This record gives sequence, C-alpha cells and structure tokens, in this order.
Amino acid sequence: MSSFKILEIKKSIFENNDKQADELRQELKGKKTFLLNLMSSPGSGKTTTLKNTILALKDKINIGVMEADIDSAVDAVTISETGVKVIQLHTGGMCHLDASMTKQGLEGLGIENIDLAILENIGNLVCPAEFDTGAVKNAMILSVPEGDDKPLKYPLMFTICDVLLINKIDVMEYFDFDINKCIERAKKLNPNIKIIPISAKFGDGLEEWTNWLYQEVQKWIK
Amino acid sequence: MSSFKILEIKKSIFENNDKQADELRQELKGKKTFLLNLMSSPGSGKTTTLKNTILALKDKINIGVMEADIDSAVDAVTISETGVKVIQLHTGGMCHLDASMTKQGLEGLGIENIDLAILENIGNLVCPAEFDTGAVKNAMILSVPEGDDKPLKYPLMFTICDVLLINKIDVMEYFDFDINKCIERAKKLNPNIKIIPISAKFGDGLEEWTNWLYQEVQKWIK
Repeated sequence: MSSFKILEIKKSIFENNDKQADELRQELKGKKTFLLNLMSSPGSGKTTTLKNTILALKDKINIGVMEADIDSAVDAVTISETGVKVIQLHTGGMCHLDASMTKQGLEGLGIENIDLAILENIGNLVCPAEFDTGAVKNAMILSVPEGDDKPLKYPLMFTICDVLLINKIDVMEYFDFDINKCIERAKKLNPNIKIIPISAKFGDGLEEWTNWLYQEVQKWIK
Repeated sequence: MSSFKILEIKKSIFENNDKQADELRQELKGKKTFLLNLMSSPGSGKTTTLKNTILALKDKINIGVMEADIDSAVDAVTISETGVKVIQLHTGGMCHLDASMTKQGLEGLGIENIDLAILENIGNLVCPAEFDTGAVKNAMILSVPEGDDKPLKYPLMFTICDVLLINKIDVMEYFDFDINKCIERAKKLNPNIKIIPISAKFGDGLEEWTNWLYQEVQKWIK
C-alpha cells in the first residue's frame, strides 16, 4: 500500500536565500540528518535512480524522500513502494525550490530519526542551480540521450554539483554521446566533481554511487 | 563557413507581458513574418529537428533562426551550417524568453524578407510555458527517453502548445514508453493539440510536420 501526504509549498518571503540555506544546514547538522538535493532534466531517470538507491541503503540507514513537482504524484507513488517515508511537494508552478521551501518540505516529511533526506528537485537544469536548498551535497543526473554538450549549455548546474551521474549508459550505442568529451567538459567547469556513469535500469555503477552517498551520510551524522 | 552574431538579451522592464506579446504578433503580421516558438527539455532533439526542418523548407520560404541559450553557441554553429540566417541569444542565466526579449532577438536577427522566424527557446519544460513570446504558434518536442508521464508532470507546457512532436521514436524499443498513454495524457490537457511522432535523426514523420508548418506560414503571410 502506498501512502503519502501532498504538501502545497508556499512561496518564500525571505530575501536572503543563502543565509536561510546556511541556517537550515546547521539545523540539519544538529538533528543528524543529511540532505541530498538531486537535480536533472525532465526524464533523465531521477526517480528510477532514487528508487534503486533507496533499495540499496534502506536497511543500513533511515531514509525520507521529498518529491517536488509542478503537479501530479506519480513519483511519490513509485518511491512509496520502497517502504520509506515520502512526501509529495507541489510548487504551484514554481520552477525550483529554495531553502525556505525545502524547510517546509522537511517539516512536512518529519525528519526525527531520518539519517538521509533526499529532495528530488523539479526537472530543470536552469533554475534549481541558482538556489541553495540547504542541502549538504548536490547531485545531478545527465542521461545519455540528452547529449554530451549539456555542460556547455547549462554550466551553472555542473559547477554547483558535487556528483554527476551519467545515466542510461546501457543505450549508449544508439546515441551520438561521447562520454570522454562530456567528462572533460564537466571537469573543466568543476575540477572536483565526482563523475559516475550508471545504468539506473540495469544497476551498473550504482554500487559506487550508493557507497559514496553512504560514506557522506556517515561523515555528517557521526 | 558559419557566421552569426551573439546578442546578450536584456531583462524586460515591461510588467504586462501578454500585452507586449499581442503587440509583437500584430507587428509580425504587418511585416508578413511567422514566428514559431519551439520548446522542450534539454537534449530532446530541438536542434536536430530544426536543422532538418530548415533543410526541407529553405528553398520554398525564407527562414531565420534565434538560438536562445544560457551560454555557448553550439546550436547556432549547427544551424548556421544550413545556410539560413541565425543569431545566438544569451539570456544571462534567465530560464525563458518573454515577448520583449523575443523582440530584441528579432531586431538582432533582422526580419526583412523573413517568412518564418524560429525561436529555439531555453531547454526547460517549466518557465518558457509561462510566457507568451509573441509567437504565432507554439511547438514542443518530447523525446521517447524522457518518458510518457511528462504531460502529468509539466501540464502547462502541453496545454499551451499547438503541436507536440514525439521525437526519437527510432529508439522506442529500448525504453518503457507507451505512446498511446502519452498521446491520451496530452489530449486530455489539450484536445486540439496536433501530435506527430518523429525521428529527427532518420526523418520519420518530418514531412507531416514540415507540411503543417509550411501551410501555417502561408496562411499567416498571404
């Protein structure tokens, strides 16, 4: 049985989002909750990646998920099937979440005893990159069908992320996608970005990703 | 030899975008120029579709293209290879174009003798849907790898478009994409939307699309 709340997020009244984000991070540190902000284009495989990430980690740490969307609850339905706590956030047409909106989501979710809270942000490579949500780490997914030129076109997103998952590598042969060029372009923008090619559908690369995430959570909540 | 200008677009100072958009459409009617606003997620195949659309129509009508991006000029390079007039618009981080920004682009492009001006909007399913650019028709591309649930998650985009091109049908068998469900979801939001499945890469469906576009241009400029 899937069961989750739908929360209508209110627009922020705060002008200084960076300050709100820093305060939220401090609050999360005190509560021993790690917040991951997961971003990508529409349809890059965020929800499938997330589902398999949860299945790999849920017996080791307590996970809660916030699914942010303009509309619908299809992702919350999918994630709730894993058995973890999930809330669907509706942004009322807004194209991103900032720190105060994320805080509303965390309060709606309830993070007592949650080690890892994951925000699945709105599918958009532009606006979410501009707003610090208060997350401890930012991760993004770029899928092979989207093309290897995306770091050139959406540089800020690649610059602010700690991890880049290159998804759908199982269909690489059907697309003109030069993974070396893609990696080179991302590293030029952000030399410290960790890049992991994955197939969320078939599991390739997911162990490296979930190991990294698990270790980051441990460092934060210890 | 590719050659094109890069124009840094200024943020609008007008509060009433709908009024600006209507005025721009009237101006275009007077000048006998049809403006198409082409939207989609990043990496859905806008530029490839556009390139093949131009090759199919450029001997029959005069075409000019505005490539809008946050950064880079990769799309303008690709389009300029077709020989049509092209300008690269940089939005300075902005996630969409409104009517006044589009007007700046048209002035930069120069539309004397242009029958069909095409705006390749920022790759984003959220923000561009909220702003009337002054276009005569709106078209969007959804590509098969993005998934058949996108009308549920980005309803406004599907509601405001006159045409939906479902691209990358050549890779349909490698993805869980139910085209009938996708069409049903789009038609529920927008019963009048024209839906054409295409493969921009291999040409399927492009004749139906370019015929439709050619006829709309003729109706507008006659």
